Amino acid sequence: MTPFSHTPLFQQVTIIGVGLLGGSLGLALKQLGLAKTVIGVGRSRANLELAMNMEAIDAFVGDAKEVVGQSDFVVLATPVDTYLEHVKHWGECLRSHTVVSDVGSVKGPLVLQLESQLPPEVFFVGAHPIAGKEKSGVAYAEAGLFKGARCIVTPTSRTRPEALKTVCALWEAVGSTVISMNPHDHDWVLGAVSHLPHVAAFSLMQALCSLQKDDKTHSMNLLSFSGGGLRDTTRIAASSPEMWRDICLANRDNLLQMIDQYVGHLQEFKKTLQVNDAQRLQQLLEESKSLRERLT
Amino acid sequence: MTPFSHTPLFQQVTIIGVGLLGGSLGLALKQLGLAKTVIGVGRSRANLELAMNMEAIDAFVGDAKEVVGQSDFVVLATPVDTYLEHVKHWGECLRSHTVVSDVGSVKGPLVLQLESQLPPEVFFVGAHPIAGKEKSGVAYAEAGLFKGARCIVTPTSRTRPEALKTVCALWEAVGSTVISMNPHDHDWVLGAVSHLPHVAAFSLMQALCSLQKDDKTHSMNLLSFSGGGLRDTTRIAASSPEMWRDICLANRDNLLQMIDQYVGHLQEFKKTLQVNDAQRLQQLLEESKSLRERLT
Repeated sequence: MTPFSHTPLFQQVTIIGVGLLGGSLGLALKQLGLAKTVIGVGRSRANLELAMNMEAIDAFVGDAKEVVGQSDFVVLATPVDTYLEHVKHWGECLRSHTVVSDVGSVKGPLVLQLESQLPPEVFFVGAHPIAGKEKSGVAYAEAGLFKGARCIVTPTSRTRPEALKTVCALWEAVGSTVISMNPHDHDWVLGAVSHLPHVAAFSLMQALCSLQKDDKTHSMNLLSFSGGGLRDTTRIAASSPEMWRDICLANRDNLLQMIDQYVGHLQEFKKTLQVNDAQRLQQLLEESKSLRERLT
Repeated sequence: MTPFSHTPLFQQVTIIGVGLLGGSLGLALKQLGLAKTVIGVGRSRANLELAMNMEAIDAFVGDAKEVVGQSDFVVLATPVDTYLEHVKHWGECLRSHTVVSDVGSVKGPLVLQLESQLPPEVFFVGAHPIAGKEKSGVAYAEAGLFKGARCIVTPTSRTRPEALKTVCALWEAVGSTVISMNPHDHDWVLGAVSHLPHVAAFSLMQALCSLQKDDKTHSMNLLSFSGGGLRDTTRIAASSPEMWRDICLANRDNLLQMIDQYVGHLQEFKKTLQVNDAQRLQQLLEESKSLRERLT
């Protein structure tokens, strides 16, 4: 990226939570010249110092109250279940026309709750860059993380068009393709294509562990025999536990229904195997293959 | 690889089934000079001609009976459920001291059945190179497929030491690390680290398809929103249906028990989510992460 290739979209950006996503956004904002100043807010001084050294932020504070009043853009990049608490703490300090956004993996009712929590002349726009790694922390942040990724924005009937336009311009500037959908559709889609696969991977690791523990017949170290298949299938099982705890809880209703759906298909597979139905088994496998090949 | 860098281990090798694995083995045998002649056997003339053009084999026949009597090494690389049928067809044509092996993903009782089917002076050694791709067919074969991979050999009390030594030498020569275990341990280990993850991926694709079909609320194309997580988790769902039908059926008893184990963990996850037990949820996620990080 060429430094200062853009006219700044923002005078001062405050990033609440400078981890993988917050840190990557800071790096991209600064390297592309999209913000004159980027301030980090967080609990860990060591983490914020690392973010400073990496030039993801220009300065940091422990309490957002000190800086949000001078910011024209505030982005929440902490676990989703902390959003309301944050906004309750410093929402009143925001000046009119400040745009507040986020990078969270769950939207749904949270977006409406945030909107009603913020002062009337502060504009909220939910955003979810579909980018990430199984690694967490600012140490893994990179300016190019959002390049080529999709970013979903979730406007509501209360969203100000100019604020939506600014948030879209930001994500396009960092290289993402922006897609707009309502917050509830977002949670259903992400529940299916991201949250359920994570649960599948988490539970698969648990199952391997139980198989190993319960085994009385074979004395083999299962985990030492993994091939590429297992490694790929479970890569996302190493994602941040705090983050995924909150995502799962926040998208609970969708996820409960989706786990049921998944278990239903595993049971069907099992039943087909139990009765030795080779023809039906092959049909299931052919369907899975053709669906997989349609993934874009 | 340097051509003819090895003293030939074999005068004539017959490969039954010249697909991804059989074809890759042919390429490696020829490029490394491990066999003077490699003959392919298969049902599809077009496939065998492609294998010839790729120089994975020197010649081919439709009926193995024509060639196995002049071969000192015969390797089964067809779906595992066809092995017994093959050996019944041409087993009697083998000359004494021929080594018969395979590349199949299931061993268990099959190895004992093959041993009793073959003439007494023919030596069987089960082998399973843990290498592959979600693509099938000789078109995807490559000489380097087995480099850096593990190959499990499954000797029994009837295995001749000199035959085992030859088979180990072959897999080491093509770049694999050879591990020996009994056929039943093999099926348990592979059931857990490979077959179960495949079932998890197959069923996940099925679940996404049902979610899409049953949806009345959202009109979104789920499959167009996949991120890297879903793509990795389901990569192996695109594997060959015939091959996986046979693997699942052949390792049925292990797999049924393992699917139960997996479903149990999904149910536990669901229950934890249902009662909003954030602490237990985080504990589960931390366990999964630490297990995933131990995968070698």
